[in-house]
Amino acid sequence: MVMPNALLEKSLNKRVSLFLKDGRTLEGTLTGFDDYMNMVLEDTKEDREESSRKLGVVVLRGNNVVSISFI
Amino acid sequence: MVMPNALLEKSLNKRVSLFLKDGRTLEGTLTGFDDYMNMVLEDTKEDREESSRKLGVVVLRGNNVVSISFI
Amino acid sequence: MVMPNALLEKSLNKRVSLFLKDGRTLEGTLTGFDDYMNMVLEDTKEDREESSRKLGVVVLRGNNVVSISFI
Amino acid sequence: MVMPNALLEKSLNKRVSLFLKDGRTLEGTLTGFDDYMNMVLEDTKEDREESSRKLGVVVLRGNNVVSISFI
Amino acid sequence: MVMPNALLEKSLNKRVSLFLKDGRTLEGTLTGFDDYMNMVLEDTKEDREESSRKLGVVVLRGNNVVSISFI
Amino acid sequence: MVMPNALLEKSLNKRVSLFLKDGRTLEGTLTGFDDYMNMVLEDTKEDREESSRKLGVVVLRGNNVVSISFI
Amino acid sequence: MVMPNALLEKSLNKRVSLFLKDGRTLEGTLTGFDDYMNMVLEDTKEDREESSRKLGVVVLRGNNVVSISFI
Repeated sequence: MVMPNALLEKSLNKRVSLFLKDGRTLEGTLTGFDDYMNMVLEDTKEDREESSRKLGVVVLRGNNVVSISFI
Repeated sequence: MVMPNALLEKSLNKRVSLFLKDGRTLEGTLTGFDDYMNMVLEDTKEDREESSRKLGVVVLRGNNVVSISFI
Repeated sequence: MVMPNALLEKSLNKRVSLFLKDGRTLEGTLTGFDDYMNMVLEDTKEDREESSRKLGVVVLRGNNVVSISFI
Repeated sequence: MVMPNALLEKSLNKRVSLFLKDGRTLEGTLTGFDDYMNMVLEDTKEDREESSRKLGVVVLRGNNVVSISFI
Repeated sequence: MVMPNALLEKSLNKRVSLFLKDGRTLEGTLTGFDDYMNMVLEDTKEDREESSRKLGVVVLRGNNVVSISFI
Repeated sequence: MVMPNALLEKSLNKRVSLFLKDGRTLEGTLTGFDDYMNMVLEDTKEDREESSRKLGVVVLRGNNVVSISFI
Repeated sequence: MVMPNALLEKSLNKRVSLFLKDGRTLEGTLTGFDDYMNMVLEDTKEDREESSRKLGVVVLRGNNVVSISFI
Protein backbone atom coordinates (compact mmCIF):
# COMPACT_ATOMS: atom_id res chain seq x y z
CA MET A 1 0.00 0.00 0.00
CA VAL A 2 1.22 3.48 -0.99
CA MET A 3 0.09 6.02 1.62
CA PRO A 4 -0.84 9.40 0.03
CA ASN A 5 1.55 11.22 2.40
CA ALA A 6 4.42 8.87 1.59
CA LEU A 7 3.94 9.52 -2.11
CA LEU A 8 4.07 13.28 -1.50
CA GLU A 9 7.26 12.84 0.50
CA LYS A 10 8.86 10.86 -2.34
CA SER A 11 7.84 13.66 -4.72
CA LEU A 12 9.71 16.40 -2.86
CA ASN A 13 11.78 18.54 -5.24
CA LYS A 14 9.95 17.10 -8.22
CA ARG A 15 7.49 18.82 -10.55
CA VAL A 16 3.83 18.32 -9.68
CA SER A 17 0.57 19.54 -11.15
CA LEU A 18 -2.18 20.60 -8.73
CA PHE A 19 -5.77 20.78 -9.79
CA LEU A 20 -7.71 23.26 -7.59
CA LYS A 21 -11.41 23.48 -6.71
CA ASP A 22 -11.72 26.81 -8.52
CA GLY A 23 -10.60 25.30 -11.82
CA ARG A 24 -7.04 26.60 -11.82
CA THR A 25 -4.07 24.31 -12.38
CA LEU A 26 -0.74 25.06 -10.67
CA GLU A 27 2.44 23.42 -11.88
CA GLY A 28 5.52 23.74 -9.68
CA THR A 29 8.30 22.04 -7.75
CA LEU A 30 6.93 20.58 -4.50
CA THR A 31 9.24 21.73 -1.71
CA GLY A 32 7.05 21.05 1.33
CA PHE A 33 3.67 20.06 2.76
CA ASP A 34 2.05 19.49 6.15
CA ASP A 35 -0.57 17.22 7.71
CA TYR A 36 -3.44 19.26 6.22
CA MET A 37 -1.92 18.88 2.73
CA ASN A 38 -1.06 22.56 2.73
CA MET A 39 1.76 22.66 0.19
CA VAL A 40 4.72 24.79 -0.85
CA LEU A 41 5.50 25.05 -4.56
CA GLU A 42 8.45 26.80 -6.21
CA ASP A 43 8.80 28.03 -9.81
CA THR A 44 5.03 27.88 -10.02
CA LYS A 45 3.07 28.41 -13.20
CA GLU A 46 -0.67 29.05 -12.98
CA ASP A 47 -2.96 27.99 -15.82
CA ARG A 48 -6.52 29.19 -16.17
CA GLU A 49 -8.80 28.52 -19.04
CA GLU A 50 -7.55 31.42 -21.13
CA SER A 51 -4.41 32.70 -19.46
CA SER A 52 -1.20 31.62 -17.83
CA ARG A 53 1.24 33.39 -15.49
CA LYS A 54 4.30 32.78 -13.33
CA LEU A 55 3.78 32.91 -9.55
CA GLY A 56 7.16 31.95 -8.14
CA VAL A 57 6.87 30.53 -4.60
CA VAL A 58 3.32 29.67 -3.51
CA VAL A 59 1.70 28.33 -0.34
CA LEU A 60 -1.48 26.42 -1.07
CA ARG A 61 -4.22 25.67 1.44
CA GLY A 62 -4.89 21.94 1.31
CA ASN A 63 -8.66 22.18 1.33
CA ASN A 64 -8.61 23.87 -2.09
CA VAL A 65 -6.73 21.02 -3.71
CA VAL A 66 -8.68 18.38 -5.62
CA SER A 67 -5.86 16.25 -7.00
CA ILE A 68 -2.10 16.14 -7.41
CA SER A 69 -0.47 14.52 -10.38
CA PHE A 70 3.18 13.92 -11.06
CA ILE A 71 4.91 15.08 -14.18
CA MET B 1 -21.38 -6.09 7.31
CA VAL B 2 -18.83 -4.81 4.77
CA MET B 3 -17.02 -1.79 6.20
CA PRO B 4 -16.24 0.84 3.50
CA ASN B 5 -12.54 0.83 4.48
CA ALA B 6 -12.33 -2.94 4.29
CA LEU B 7 -13.78 -2.88 0.79
CA LEU B 8 -11.16 -0.32 -0.28
CA GLU B 9 -8.44 -2.52 1.18
CA LYS B 10 -9.71 -5.53 -0.77
CA SER B 11 -9.67 -3.38 -3.92
CA LEU B 12 -5.97 -2.50 -3.71
CA ASN B 13 -4.24 -2.99 -7.06
CA LYS B 14 -7.57 -3.24 -8.82
CA ARG B 15 -9.16 -0.77 -11.24
CA VAL B 16 -11.62 1.68 -9.67
CA SER B 17 -13.70 4.52 -10.99
CA LEU B 18 -13.95 7.68 -8.83
CA PHE B 19 -16.72 10.17 -9.28
CA LEU B 20 -15.65 13.63 -8.06
CA LYS B 21 -17.68 16.59 -6.78
CA ASP B 22 -16.60 18.71 -9.75
CA GLY B 23 -18.11 16.27 -12.23
CA ARG B 24 -14.88 14.59 -13.35
CA THR B 25 -14.49 10.82 -13.36
CA LEU B 26 -11.07 9.28 -12.68
CA GLU B 27 -10.37 5.68 -13.56
CA GLY B 28 -7.19 4.11 -12.24
CA THR B 29 -5.52 1.36 -10.24
CA LEU B 30 -6.01 1.97 -6.50
CA THR B 31 -2.60 1.63 -4.85
CA GLY B 32 -3.26 3.34 -1.53
CA PHE B 33 -5.58 5.34 0.70
CA ASP B 34 -5.64 6.77 4.23
CA ASP B 35 -8.17 7.41 7.00
CA TYR B 36 -9.50 10.56 5.26
CA MET B 37 -10.11 8.54 2.07
CA ASN B 38 -7.30 10.40 0.37
CA MET B 39 -6.36 7.98 -2.38
CA VAL B 40 -3.47 7.09 -4.68
CA LEU B 41 -4.31 6.00 -8.22
CA GLU B 42 -1.92 4.75 -10.91
CA ASP B 43 -2.40 4.63 -14.72
CA THR B 44 -5.15 7.19 -14.22
CA LYS B 45 -7.46 8.34 -16.97
CA GLU B 46 -9.55 11.48 -16.44
CA ASP B 47 -12.91 11.84 -18.15
CA ARG B 48 -14.76 15.12 -18.41
CA GLU B 49 -17.90 15.74 -20.33
CA GLU B 50 -16.16 16.40 -23.62
CA SER B 51 -12.57 15.35 -23.18
CA SER B 52 -10.33 12.66 -21.78
CA ARG B 53 -6.64 12.57 -20.84
CA LYS B 54 -4.04 10.38 -19.14
CA LEU B 55 -2.75 11.56 -15.74
CA GLY B 56 -0.45 8.77 -14.61
CA VAL B 57 -0.06 8.70 -10.81
CA VAL B 58 -2.56 10.86 -8.91
CA VAL B 59 -3.17 11.73 -5.24
CA LEU B 60 -6.80 12.57 -4.58
CA ARG B 61 -8.10 14.50 -1.60
CA GLY B 62 -10.86 12.44 -0.01
CA ASN B 63 -13.28 15.30 0.49
CA ASN B 64 -13.63 15.73 -3.28
CA VAL B 65 -14.74 12.16 -3.81
CA VAL B 66 -18.45 11.41 -4.09
CA SER B 67 -18.39 7.70 -4.87
CA ILE B 68 -16.06 4.87 -5.78
CA SER B 69 -17.15 2.04 -8.00
CA PHE B 70 -15.28 -1.09 -8.94
CA ILE B 71 -14.68 -2.15 -12.50
CA MET C 1 -36.71 6.48 19.81
CA VAL C 2 -35.22 5.03 16.59
CA MET C 3 -31.57 6.05 16.30
CA PRO C 4 -30.53 6.73 12.67
CA ASN C 5 -27.61 4.28 12.96
CA ALA C 6 -29.84 1.55 14.34
CA LEU C 7 -32.22 1.95 11.43
CA LEU C 8 -29.32 1.61 8.98
CA GLU C 9 -28.20 -1.53 10.76
CA LYS C 10 -31.69 -3.03 10.51
CA SER C 11 -31.63 -2.21 6.79
CA LEU C 12 -28.50 -4.23 6.01
CA ASN C 13 -28.98 -6.44 2.95
CA LYS C 14 -32.13 -4.54 2.02
CA ARG C 15 -32.70 -2.23 -0.94
CA VAL C 16 -32.25 1.47 -0.17
CA SER C 17 -32.48 4.62 -2.22
CA LEU C 18 -29.86 7.34 -1.59
CA PHE C 19 -30.43 10.90 -2.60
CA LEU C 20 -27.09 12.71 -3.14
CA LYS C 21 -26.15 16.39 -2.93
CA ASP C 22 -25.34 16.48 -6.64
CA GLY C 23 -28.87 15.44 -7.59
CA ARG C 24 -28.12 11.79 -8.38
CA THR C 25 -30.16 8.96 -6.87
CA LEU C 26 -28.50 5.62 -6.16
CA GLU C 27 -30.56 2.52 -5.55
CA GLY C 28 -28.78 -0.53 -4.19
CA THR C 29 -28.50 -3.19 -1.51
CA LEU C 30 -26.94 -1.72 1.65
CA THR C 31 -24.16 -4.07 2.71
CA GLY C 32 -22.20 -1.81 5.06
CA PHE C 33 -21.67 1.62 6.58
CA ASP C 34 -19.41 3.30 9.13
CA ASP C 35 -19.61 6.08 11.73
CA TYR C 36 -19.32 8.80 9.07
CA MET C 37 -22.25 7.27 7.16
CA ASN C 38 -19.91 6.19 4.41
CA MET C 39 -21.86 3.36 2.83
CA VAL C 40 -21.38 0.26 0.70
CA LEU C 41 -24.04 -0.56 -1.86
CA GLU C 42 -24.27 -3.62 -4.12
CA ASP C 43 -26.22 -4.08 -7.37
CA THR C 44 -26.35 -0.31 -7.59
CA LYS C 45 -28.34 1.60 -10.15
CA GLU C 46 -27.66 5.29 -10.68
CA ASP C 47 -30.44 7.60 -11.84
CA ARG C 48 -29.80 11.09 -13.15
CA GLU C 49 -32.36 13.39 -14.64
CA GLU C 50 -32.13 11.95 -18.11
CA SER C 51 -30.12 8.77 -17.87
CA SER C 52 -29.66 5.62 -15.82
CA ARG C 53 -26.81 3.10 -15.53
CA LYS C 54 -25.66 0.11 -13.50
CA LEU C 55 -22.68 0.65 -11.17
CA GLY C 56 -22.33 -2.67 -9.34
CA VAL C 57 -20.56 -2.26 -5.99
CA VAL C 58 -20.19 1.34 -4.80
CA VAL C 59 -18.58 3.06 -1.80
CA LEU C 60 -20.26 6.36 -1.00
CA ARG C 61 -18.75 9.15 1.06
CA GLY C 62 -21.26 10.03 3.78
CA ASN C 63 -20.96 13.78 3.40
CA ASN C 64 -22.48 13.60 -0.09
CA VAL C 65 -25.63 11.87 1.12
CA VAL C 66 -28.73 13.96 1.78
CA SER C 67 -31.25 11.27 2.63
CA ILE C 68 -31.75 7.53 2.65
CA SER C 69 -35.12 5.99 2.04
CA PHE C 70 -36.12 2.36 2.23
CA ILE C 71 -37.81 0.54 -0.60
CA MET D 1 -34.39 28.22 28.11
CA VAL D 2 -35.56 25.59 25.59
CA MET D 3 -32.58 23.60 24.32
CA PRO D 4 -32.92 22.64 20.62
CA ASN D 5 -32.34 18.95 21.44
CA ALA D 6 -34.94 18.98 24.19
CA LEU D 7 -37.51 20.40 21.80
CA LEU D 8 -36.74 17.63 19.28
CA GLU D 9 -37.17 15.06 22.03
CA LYS D 10 -40.56 16.49 22.99
CA SER D 11 -41.53 16.31 19.31
CA LEU D 12 -40.95 12.56 18.98
CA ASN D 13 -43.87 10.84 17.25
CA LYS D 14 -45.24 14.18 16.13
CA ARG D 15 -45.42 15.59 12.59
CA VAL D 16 -42.57 17.91 11.65
CA SER D 17 -41.62 19.78 8.52
CA LEU D 18 -37.94 19.86 7.53
CA PHE D 19 -36.58 22.48 5.21
CA LEU D 20 -33.42 21.19 3.42
CA LYS D 21 -30.46 23.04 1.91
CA ASP D 22 -31.37 21.81 -1.58
CA GLY D 23 -34.80 23.45 -1.40
CA ARG D 24 -36.83 20.32 -0.69
CA THR D 25 -39.32 20.16 2.17
CA LEU D 26 -39.92 16.86 3.95
CA GLU D 27 -42.96 16.37 6.13
CA GLY D 28 -43.06 13.30 8.35
CA THR D 29 -43.39 11.82 11.82
CA LEU D 30 -40.15 12.31 13.77
CA THR D 31 -39.23 8.93 15.27
CA GLY D 32 -35.58 9.51 16.11
CA PHE D 33 -32.50 11.72 15.94
CA ASP D 34 -28.90 11.71 17.14
CA ASP D 35 -26.28 14.22 18.33
CA TYR D 36 -25.52 15.33 14.76
CA MET D 37 -29.23 16.06 14.17
CA ASN D 38 -29.40 13.12 11.79
CA MET D 39 -33.12 12.32 11.88
CA VAL D 40 -35.53 9.47 11.21
CA LEU D 41 -38.90 10.33 9.70
CA GLU D 42 -41.83 8.00 9.02
CA ASP D 43 -44.75 8.47 6.60
CA THR D 44 -42.64 11.06 4.85
CA LYS D 45 -43.91 13.28 2.06
CA GLU D 46 -41.40 15.16 -0.08
CA ASP D 47 -42.36 18.48 -1.64
CA ARG D 48 -40.34 20.12 -4.38
CA GLU D 49 -41.29 23.21 -6.28
CA GLU D 50 -43.42 21.41 -8.82
CA SER D 51 -43.89 17.89 -7.56
CA SER D 52 -44.67 15.83 -4.48
CA ARG D 53 -44.13 12.17 -3.60
CA LYS D 54 -44.34 9.71 -0.70
CA LEU D 55 -41.03 8.39 0.67
CA GLY D 56 -42.08 6.27 3.65
CA VAL D 57 -39.25 5.91 6.18
CA VAL D 58 -36.32 8.29 5.66
CA VAL D 59 -32.95 8.87 7.36
CA LEU D 60 -31.76 12.46 6.95
CA ARG D 61 -28.19 13.64 7.37
CA GLY D 62 -28.26 16.54 9.82
CA ASN D 63 -25.92 18.78 7.85
CA ASN D 64 -28.48 19.07 5.06
CA VAL D 65 -31.18 20.40 7.36
CA VAL D 66 -31.76 24.15 7.54
CA SER D 67 -34.76 24.31 9.86
CA ILE D 68 -37.37 22.15 11.52
CA SER D 69 -40.86 23.41 12.17
CA PHE D 70 -43.66 21.73 14.02
CA ILE D 71 -47.08 21.18 12.53
CA MET E 1 -16.15 42.73 25.96
CA VAL E 2 -19.57 41.33 25.02
CA MET E 3 -19.28 37.63 24.25
CA PRO E 4 -21.61 36.53 21.40
CA ASN E 5 -23.11 33.79 23.59
CA ALA E 6 -23.74 36.19 26.45
CA LEU E 7 -25.62 38.53 24.13
CA LEU E 8 -27.80 35.64 22.93
CA GLU E 9 -28.54 34.73 26.54
CA LYS E 10 -29.56 38.31 27.34
CA SER E 11 -31.86 38.19 24.28
CA LEU E 12 -33.87 35.19 25.46
CA ASN E 13 -37.61 35.81 25.12
CA LYS E 14 -36.98 38.82 22.93
CA ARG E 15 -37.68 39.23 19.20
CA VAL E 16 -34.73 38.54 16.93
CA SER E 17 -34.21 38.55 13.19
CA LEU E 18 -32.06 35.78 11.69
CA PHE E 19 -30.50 36.12 8.29
CA LEU E 20 -29.86 32.68 6.74
CA LYS E 21 -27.34 31.51 4.13
CA ASP E 22 -30.13 30.68 1.68
CA GLY E 23 -31.39 34.27 1.70
CA ARG E 24 -34.39 33.75 3.97
CA THR E 25 -35.01 35.96 6.99
CA LEU E 26 -36.70 34.49 10.07
CA GLU E 27 -38.18 36.76 12.71
CA GLY E 28 -39.20 35.19 16.00
CA THR E 29 -38.92 35.10 19.79
CA LEU E 30 -35.63 33.47 20.79
CA THR E 31 -36.43 30.83 23.40
CA GLY E 32 -33.26 28.75 23.33
CA PHE E 33 -29.90 28.01 21.76
CA ASP E 34 -26.95 25.65 22.26
CA ASP E 35 -23.16 25.70 21.84
CA TYR E 36 -23.42 25.23 18.06
CA MET E 37 -25.74 28.26 17.82
CA ASN E 38 -28.62 25.95 16.97
CA MET E 39 -31.60 28.08 17.98
CA VAL E 40 -35.25 27.77 18.96
CA LEU E 41 -37.63 30.48 17.79
CA GLU E 42 -41.32 30.89 18.63
CA ASP E 43 -44.02 32.84 16.73
CA THR E 44 -41.72 32.73 13.75
CA LYS E 45 -42.37 34.60 10.53
CA GLU E 46 -40.38 33.66 7.42
CA ASP E 47 -39.64 36.28 4.78
CA ARG E 48 -38.39 35.44 1.31
CA GLU E 49 -37.94 37.84 -1.53
CA GLU E 50 -41.52 37.67 -2.69
CA SER E 51 -43.47 35.88 -0.02
CA SER E 52 -43.99 35.63 3.72
CA ARG E 53 -45.50 32.94 5.97
CA LYS E 54 -45.96 31.99 9.62
CA LEU E 55 -43.97 28.99 10.87
CA GLY E 56 -44.75 28.88 14.60
CA VAL E 57 -42.01 27.08 16.57
CA VAL E 58 -38.77 26.49 14.62
CA VAL E 59 -35.44 24.80 15.35
CA LEU E 60 -32.62 26.28 13.29
CA ARG E 61 -29.29 24.61 12.59
CA GLY E 62 -26.57 27.06 13.57
CA ASN E 63 -24.41 26.52 10.51
CA ASN E 64 -27.12 28.02 8.29
CA VAL E 65 -27.21 31.28 10.23
CA VAL E 66 -25.24 34.25 8.91
CA SER E 67 -26.24 36.94 11.40
CA ILE E 68 -28.65 37.67 14.20
CA SER E 69 -30.01 41.13 14.80
CA PHE E 70 -32.16 42.37 17.63
CA ILE E 71 -35.43 44.15 17.06
CA MET F 1 4.23 39.14 14.98
CA VAL F 2 0.66 40.46 15.28
CA MET F 3 -1.71 37.60 16.11
CA PRO F 4 -5.13 38.00 14.41
CA ASN F 5 -6.92 37.62 17.77
CA ALA F 6 -4.72 40.24 19.41
CA LEU F 7 -5.53 42.71 16.65
CA LEU F 8 -9.25 42.10 17.16
CA GLU F 9 -8.83 42.68 20.88
CA LYS F 10 -7.06 45.98 20.25
CA SER F 11 -9.93 46.96 17.95
CA LEU F 12 -12.64 46.58 20.59
CA ASN F 13 -14.97 49.60 20.64
CA LYS F 14 -13.61 50.77 17.31
CA ARG F 15 -15.36 50.86 13.94
CA VAL F 16 -14.69 47.85 11.72
CA SER F 17 -15.87 46.79 8.28
CA LEU F 18 -16.70 43.11 7.77
CA PHE F 19 -16.81 41.58 4.34
CA LEU F 20 -19.11 38.51 4.31
CA LYS F 21 -19.16 35.43 2.07
CA ASP F 22 -22.57 36.40 0.68
CA GLY F 23 -21.24 39.72 -0.62
CA ARG F 24 -22.67 41.94 2.11
CA THR F 25 -20.53 44.44 3.98
CA LEU F 26 -21.30 45.25 7.61
CA GLU F 27 -19.84 48.31 9.25
CA GLY F 28 -20.15 48.61 13.02
CA THR F 29 -18.48 49.05 16.38
CA LEU F 30 -16.79 45.78 17.44
CA THR F 31 -17.88 45.08 21.01
CA GLY F 32 -17.00 41.42 21.30
CA PHE F 33 -15.82 38.21 19.67
CA ASP F 34 -15.03 34.61 20.63
CA ASP F 35 -12.59 31.87 19.62
CA TYR F 36 -14.61 31.02 16.50
CA MET F 37 -14.44 34.67 15.38
CA ASN F 38 -18.15 35.02 16.05
CA MET F 39 -18.48 38.76 16.55
CA VAL F 40 -20.75 41.34 18.15
CA LEU F 41 -21.22 44.64 16.33
CA GLU F 42 -23.14 47.71 17.51
CA ASP F 43 -24.56 50.60 15.45
CA THR F 44 -24.29 48.33 12.45
CA LYS F 45 -24.92 49.44 8.90
CA GLU F 46 -25.39 46.81 6.19
CA ASP F 47 -24.40 47.54 2.61
CA ARG F 48 -25.48 45.43 -0.32
CA GLU F 49 -24.89 46.19 -3.94
CA GLU F 50 -27.90 48.41 -4.33
CA SER F 51 -29.22 49.09 -0.86
CA SER F 52 -28.19 50.01 2.65
CA ARG F 53 -29.92 49.69 6.04
CA LYS F 54 -29.31 50.07 9.78
CA LEU F 55 -29.26 46.86 11.82
CA GLY F 56 -28.33 48.05 15.34
CA VAL F 57 -26.75 45.25 17.37
CA VAL F 58 -25.70 42.18 15.38
CA VAL F 59 -24.16 38.79 16.21
CA LEU F 60 -22.18 37.39 13.29
CA ARG F 61 -21.21 33.76 12.83
CA GLY F 62 -17.47 33.66 12.21
CA ASN F 63 -17.59 31.18 9.37
CA ASN F 64 -19.43 33.71 7.19
CA VAL F 65 -16.72 36.34 7.57
CA VAL F 66 -14.12 36.69 4.82
CA SER F 67 -12.15 39.68 6.07
CA ILE F 68 -12.19 42.43 8.66
CA SER F 69 -10.77 45.84 7.95
CA PHE F 70 -10.35 48.74 10.31
CA ILE F 71 -11.71 52.16 9.60
CA MET G 1 11.42 20.12 3.39
CA VAL G 2 9.91 23.62 3.68
CA MET G 3 6.91 23.55 6.02
CA PRO G 4 4.13 25.93 4.88
CA ASN G 5 4.07 27.59 8.33
CA ALA G 6 7.82 28.10 8.33
CA LEU G 7 7.62 29.82 4.96
CA LEU G 8 4.93 32.16 6.27
CA GLU G 9 7.10 32.96 9.28
CA LYS G 10 10.05 33.78 7.03
CA SER G 11 7.73 36.07 5.03
CA LEU G 12 6.74 38.26 7.99
CA ASN G 13 7.01 41.95 7.12
CA LYS G 14 7.28 41.14 3.44
CA ARG G 15 4.74 41.80 0.68
CA VAL G 16 2.45 38.88 -0.15
CA SER G 17 -0.39 38.35 -2.56
CA LEU G 18 -3.41 36.37 -1.34
CA PHE G 19 -5.81 34.77 -3.72
CA LEU G 20 -9.25 34.34 -2.08
CA LYS G 21 -12.07 31.87 -2.78
CA ASP G 22 -14.37 34.70 -3.86
CA GLY G 23 -12.00 35.75 -6.64
CA ARG G 24 -10.51 38.79 -4.92
CA THR G 25 -6.76 39.28 -4.65
CA LEU G 26 -5.31 41.06 -1.62
CA GLU G 27 -1.78 42.40 -1.70
CA GLY G 28 -0.26 43.55 1.58
CA THR G 29 2.54 43.27 4.13
CA LEU G 30 2.13 40.07 6.18
CA THR G 31 2.43 41.05 9.85
CA GLY G 32 0.94 38.00 11.51
CA PHE G 33 -0.88 34.68 11.21
CA ASP G 34 -2.14 31.88 13.46
CA ASP G 35 -2.54 28.09 13.33
CA TYR G 36 -5.71 28.37 11.23
CA MET G 37 -3.85 30.51 8.65
CA ASN G 38 -5.89 33.51 9.72
CA MET G 39 -3.63 36.36 8.63
CA VAL G 40 -2.96 40.03 9.33
CA LEU G 41 -2.03 42.24 6.40
CA GLU G 42 -0.99 45.92 6.48
CA ASP G 43 -1.05 48.49 3.64
CA THR G 44 -3.49 46.19 1.88
CA LYS G 45 -4.71 46.71 -1.66
CA GLU G 46 -7.73 44.77 -2.88
CA ASP G 47 -8.09 43.88 -6.55
CA ARG G 48 -11.31 42.67 -8.09
CA GLU G 49 -11.93 42.07 -11.72
CA GLU G 50 -12.81 45.64 -12.52
CA SER G 51 -11.85 47.71 -9.51
CA SER G 52 -9.15 48.24 -6.93
CA ARG G 53 -9.14 49.92 -3.51
CA LYS G 54 -6.96 50.45 -0.43
CA LEU G 55 -8.01 48.62 2.73
CA GLY G 56 -5.24 49.43 5.22
CA VAL G 57 -5.01 46.79 7.98
CA VAL G 58 -6.97 43.60 7.31
CA VAL G 59 -7.64 40.36 9.23
CA LEU G 60 -8.32 37.46 6.89
CA ARG G 61 -10.06 34.23 7.86
CA GLY G 62 -7.82 31.40 6.75
CA ASN G 63 -10.57 29.25 5.27
CA ASN G 64 -11.19 31.86 2.56
CA VAL G 65 -7.60 31.78 1.36
CA VAL G 66 -6.74 29.62 -1.65
CA SER G 67 -3.08 30.48 -2.14
CA ILE G 68 -0.38 32.86 -0.98
CA SER G 69 2.37 34.01 -3.29
CA PHE G 70 5.39 36.11 -2.50
CA ILE G 71 6.25 39.25 -4.35
